[in-house]
Amino acid sequence: MNKKPDIRPFDDIRDLISKMPPADEESANAARARDVDLTKPAGSLGRLEEIAIWISAWQGQHPPRIEKPMVAVFAGNHGVAAKGVSAFPAEVTHQMVANFKAGGAAINQLCKAVGASLKVFELALDIPTGDITEQDALSEADCAATLAYGMEAVAQESDILAIGEMGIANTTIAAALAHGLFGGTAEDWVGRGTGVDDDGLARKRDAVATAVARMKAAHGDNPDPLTVLGAVGGREFAAMAGAILAARFSKVPVVVDGYVASAAAAVLFALEPSAIDHCLFAHRSAEQAHIKLLEKMGREPLFDLGLRLGEASGAALAIGIAKAAVEVHNGMSTFSEAGVANKE
Amino acid sequence: MNKKPDIRPFDDIRDLISKMPPADEESANAARARDVDLTKPAGSLGRLEEIAIWISAWQGQHPPRIEKPMVAVFAGNHGVAAKGVSAFPAEVTHQMVANFKAGGAAINQLCKAVGASLKVFELALDIPTGDITEQDALSEADCAATLAYGMEAVAQESDILAIGEMGIANTTIAAALAHGLFGGTAEDWVGRGTGVDDDGLARKRDAVATAVARMKAAHGDNPDPLTVLGAVGGREFAAMAGAILAARFSKVPVVVDGYVASAAAAVLFALEPSAIDHCLFAHRSAEQAHIKLLEKMGREPLFDLGLRLGEASGAALAIGIAKAAVEVHNGMSTFSEAGVANKE
Repeated sequence: MNKKPDIRPFDDIRDLISKMPPADEESANAARARDVDLTKPAGSLGRLEEIAIWISAWQGQHPPRIEKPMVAVFAGNHGVAAKGVSAFPAEVTHQMVANFKAGGAAINQLCKAVGASLKVFELALDIPTGDITEQDALSEADCAATLAYGMEAVAQESDILAIGEMGIANTTIAAALAHGLFGGTAEDWVGRGTGVDDDGLARKRDAVATAVARMKAAHGDNPDPLTVLGAVGGREFAAMAGAILAARFSKVPVVVDGYVASAAAAVLFALEPSAIDHCLFAHRSAEQAHIKLLEKMGREPLFDLGLRLGEASGAALAIGIAKAAVEVHNGMSTFSEAGVANKE
Repeated sequence: MNKKPDIRPFDDIRDLISKMPPADEESANAARARDVDLTKPAGSLGRLEEIAIWISAWQGQHPPRIEKPMVAVFAGNHGVAAKGVSAFPAEVTHQMVANFKAGGAAINQLCKAVGASLKVFELALDIPTGDITEQDALSEADCAATLAYGMEAVAQESDILAIGEMGIANTTIAAALAHGLFGGTAEDWVGRGTGVDDDGLARKRDAVATAVARMKAAHGDNPDPLTVLGAVGGREFAAMAGAILAARFSKVPVVVDGYVASAAAAVLFALEPSAIDHCLFAHRSAEQAHIKLLEKMGREPLFDLGLRLGEASGAALAIGIAKAAVEVHNGMSTFSEAGVANKE
């Protein structure tokens, strides 16, 4: 394990990332071989074909299976909410978690629609993280512990995992993470979130610019991505990053929701670009900065339905599409089975 | 009824179009009123919200319901297939219909995935329509009879209807219809369909250009859209147009599949733009001309997954999304029910 005597909490995470399993090329090739023999013109099902092959590759099995899809929603609160960066009051995080538990939120209906189970993880909602404009959100020890919590939350209970979140002010945190990880200006990464007005938008931009400047003063101009996560991130971000990482080791492909969940994935990407190869990005959020973030990671989302809710709503819909892709791949007849003539 | 004594078959269709019922604004308003009170920021579910309202409007009921979704696939054969415009031999239409009936095609799996029933309609497969480069595809009487067949095929058996097709050479027909209805050049409307090679693509362009020039010589420079349908269309196109029209009268919203199904809808649009207001266009096909056709009709498709199969494959996936939209709309709690604070 080559652990150094002066080990710090983040070193365990870096160590794990260095040991991530690759895609199973044998399963992927078995999926490709079946795909070309199915009764359709080659490639005519576009991304449905890619998804079936991708699931095989990362589940390490052929045929691919989606029998236990799970949606995981991580909820956190943020000190920066006090700076007036959201259209909703901070207590809404708690209230929406209660709504998830009572079955009344959008994600409950979407899970029913696609046949997925839902797990909601509350991350110390009564103890908001530090206000990132004034101090680090989390200490290195707290940040690493929350990553570890996220890793344990979803291990080995599902065959595909949708990742999403709830947290008033967390598009401000997503913007600060993106700005801290990928540079540019605060303006590049800030949008209206749940629907903040012009004044709120200005406060949000100021908060993000201030937070990243503060981080650089405290941690240097090019801090390590995990340091960025602790400095300007938040608990649901750390937990989502942990869940994504753990899923890799459990051979569970991951579907990432919108801007906030993508910012959590971006921490892993910044550490090691291949760390998110087992992730599918569900949709292009209406939050304008999301597409920039996906471009930085070289990812093409599956669809754009103008969603900007969070709660894993887009990722849950993508689970429905992935299930259809698997059903098509596994259930279709081949040309020879069906007695259909192939391309001349 | 003002029927003229010299009534011709198409006049019944024109008469029906003049009597189409409008959207039910009362149901739409009830859906809008509920939508803004659900526990999410207003508008944050984007097109899911629009779909729930649109279904209410065209079903004429609130809450909207999707309990009997149906996928209808119309299959036809085309004389122009003899001109080498497809990568597959003409007998594949028959073979794929057998595959649909045996449950081995993509659309069978997609119907299972979204919980829709499937009906396949064979339209005189042993009697291909006239080769459009040499003669009209169908006489006015045959074309009107096939429209009427399509109208009866789907009446009152579903609460949302996905429309698609199967027919070797029918992207050539779709291109000829689009060219005949909307002008431009043959090149504008011709793509590779199921995957024709460069020589086949050239033959396809020539066939479309020749067919539309022949049509104009026979029927004048600006023939009526129904005349265009008979001259350079085909049976599955007429039947799909009939099914779309009948659904309007039965208060059944319609989801239109790709380029070929959109070309059938375009005949109705050219007759009367509001005739397709109860239609949702499922996806942007990989067939390049599809987006041009959607633009001509002012329609934004729901998603783009690179599909170019036909068979209603994209429309079936869209049914899954529409079901999710309805489930969200009907199942979510309101702010007051859930005790969640609304926007400050």
